[in-house]
Amino acid sequence: MRAGPSQEDIRRHNLGALLRHVHLGGPISRAELTAKMGLNRSTIMALTSDLTAAGLVREELPRETGRAGRPSLVVRPESSRVYVFAFDVGPDRLAAARVGLGGAILDRRETARRRGPFDLDELAGTLAGFARQMRRKTRPDTVCVGAAAAVSGGVRKDDGVIMFGPNLGAESVPFGEELGRRLGLGLPVSVGNDANLAALAEHSRGVAVGVRDLIYLHGDVGIGGGIITGGHLLGGHDGYGGEVGHMVVNPGGQPCGCGSRGCLEAEVGERALLEAAGRVAARGDTRANALSHDGDGAGRQGRDAVRAVVDAADRGDIVAQEALKRVGGWLGLGVANLVNIFNPEMVIFGGMLREVYLGSAAQVRSRLATNAMGPQRERLRLRTSALADDATLVGAAELAFAHVLADPLEVLARVTG
Amino acid sequence: MRAGPSQEDIRRHNLGALLRHVHLGGPISRAELTAKMGLNRSTIMALTSDLTAAGLVREELPRETGRAGRPSLVVRPESSRVYVFAFDVGPDRLAAARVGLGGAILDRRETARRRGPFDLDELAGTLAGFARQMRRKTRPDTVCVGAAAAVSGGVRKDDGVIMFGPNLGAESVPFGEELGRRLGLGLPVSVGNDANLAALAEHSRGVAVGVRDLIYLHGDVGIGGGIITGGHLLGGHDGYGGEVGHMVVNPGGQPCGCGSRGCLEAEVGERALLEAAGRVAARGDTRANALSHDGDGAGRQGRDAVRAVVDAADRGDIVAQEALKRVGGWLGLGVANLVNIFNPEMVIFGGMLREVYLGSAAQVRSRLATNAMGPQRERLRLRTSALADDATLVGAAELAFAHVLADPLEVLARVTG
Repeated sequence: MRAGPSQEDIRRHNLGALLRHVHLGGPISRAELTAKMGLNRSTIMALTSDLTAAGLVREELPRETGRAGRPSLVVRPESSRVYVFAFDVGPDRLAAARVGLGGAILDRRETARRRGPFDLDELAGTLAGFARQMRRKTRPDTVCVGAAAAVSGGVRKDDGVIMFGPNLGAESVPFGEELGRRLGLGLPVSVGNDANLAALAEHSRGVAVGVRDLIYLHGDVGIGGGIITGGHLLGGHDGYGGEVGHMVVNPGGQPCGCGSRGCLEAEVGERALLEAAGRVAARGDTRANALSHDGDGAGRQGRDAVRAVVDAADRGDIVAQEALKRVGGWLGLGVANLVNIFNPEMVIFGGMLREVYLGSAAQVRSRLATNAMGPQRERLRLRTSALADDATLVGAAELAFAHVLADPLEVLARVTG
Repeated sequence: MRAGPSQEDIRRHNLGALLRHVHLGGPISRAELTAKMGLNRSTIMALTSDLTAAGLVREELPRETGRAGRPSLVVRPESSRVYVFAFDVGPDRLAAARVGLGGAILDRRETARRRGPFDLDELAGTLAGFARQMRRKTRPDTVCVGAAAAVSGGVRKDDGVIMFGPNLGAESVPFGEELGRRLGLGLPVSVGNDANLAALAEHSRGVAVGVRDLIYLHGDVGIGGGIITGGHLLGGHDGYGGEVGHMVVNPGGQPCGCGSRGCLEAEVGERALLEAAGRVAARGDTRANALSHDGDGAGRQGRDAVRAVVDAADRGDIVAQEALKRVGGWLGLGVANLVNIFNPEMVIFGGMLREVYLGSAAQVRSRLATNAMGPQRERLRLRTSALADDATLVGAAELAFAHVLADPLEVLARVTG
């Protein structure tokens, strides 16, 4: 119930809105901006010259339009000049990318991560090293305007601390602070949950552009969720919203890492599938732990192991088919619950759930038909992630760009001193 | 990504914001408005004189302040002059109220409803009759600026049609249109889901003022939910968001009216409690249907029957205690799932769930401790509805006032012709 915005607020809003058009939609003519933003030509001209002076966009004559009359100048993001660092910390990989304004991944580094405890020193060191390598290759006139990391865990809204991340072996880790210190760029590192950021990425640049109500389900060792309702990411009171992996779908079912039983993650996660397919020993079997912490080269865990089950089922392996059927049934029940609760327009399967869904779509749809209410599922679309393994990195880049889009001139003034 | 607002948009926003302060917070001095809205004194004065001229507020000298200097005028809502009609259609009651700007219920009518099919003619006729009775008692200078109804069912966002309402016997009913026609006020009747509107009511005037992330659970024959995330009601793609009653908590459990089994509603709703307490025959027993459609005078169903179980448990009745324990366990599991998914600041138990929660708080909390993740439940507050049986009516009134608060002058100009 605050008062309306001041003239200065409006200018800032308009600058951000114009930059966002260019950042998300790519090169666009002034004439199109005038139409899309509902502003007059002189205002658009003033805004683009401010952004041009700041080095965020440039204006060019369009290629031959074939039309008579003076062509409208095209506004392009300064993609190779203005960039952010995006990081991803998953159970099985560490990745870093240099992403230009406009969203292009300009450079990237990646390494496998061995599952186990969270070694803050080593992790932050590796990622900062990647950033330094990429930075050394940039031209002198480039400027880094932000940095953000996607992590497989629950991130406290107030300070970006990873409060829980059982699949990373993390608990109460001030990761962003440490990575920021190591980067030495004088920039804070924003930290977000990987599924939340992947949901934002699909919403901004993936399969769900223009979709205001969506659920993104991310499978890794565990199951995470990123939920967008009415165009806004569901953050929750402390920032832990979207932890759909610990919704109980099967009371008394498989034991879960969280201490409970029958969570979606326990019934549908990597381990549940590999156990059902007889590819790792069942939980409770003392050999199980040994196996699960085994080297990952043997394909006994991780994305390759999941793909192997789906491929085997495709080739007619009955055990693999039954495993997918079982896991797909629980996945379908979880999705049906979420569809009833959220009435989304789209559900997106990402990470290893992409493979699981493709291998068990019939079970998922059958459960939806039984358990989701008719009107809720009538216009529902089920999709797989368009950005695939880049979704988390792309989402982290969007998080890093967020404050630039909120206040373009202030940020650039601060960064370039 | 539209452009920022025009001067006219800002004025409209400010008028609405000022009226909202007065409507929700009650009488307030110009000086306080200046501070709260961050506008200067002359702007506040201009806004209040516009609203005064429109007959929406009036300004008065405050009572003795005891302070020196000229006292700041107090702005009050024109509560007795400007009102809306609010309606509630529940499984067991029909209610109508005349609610003044500022939220006071000025007059009300209520009658019991016999469970059974939805008779649109009779229902709309009864409610319109209530409105006529109340209208006849108003002074000639009063003006009705809106009307809205809360219904126990899923309401399609686009047109307000009740698409499903098994506990009302309703399916694809154009209720708002018909009620609007019967009212004959030349006003559209907005229609909303009762749990959604009760959630808004608790958020605006009840136990959750200032809470931006909350889950309101409404128990009646069924279980409904109203969810507010980041200060916004979760509507979903078509308007059916919040149907938590059909989240499956116990796969293969009790049969549910929706055709599925083990839904929260089937395990925790009125019937589940009364069956567990041996007060109605179990489902599957052919006598059950006869009993459940029996007259409601005998206390065999409805709120009184639920209260009787809770009272019996209080008095030491072991069967009633076990029934509450069982139902409370499933309620707790459902709440834990929602807490993991939404990370809310508050969960509110309303309707008959108020009684059930008070009688089974230990089970609910114990399930939360087992099934909700630590960080999510750390700062969670569990509360019962403050508005009790008025929550749905109060929420309907807020829905009816919504367009007045969005654009105060336009609405009043249109209504008063």
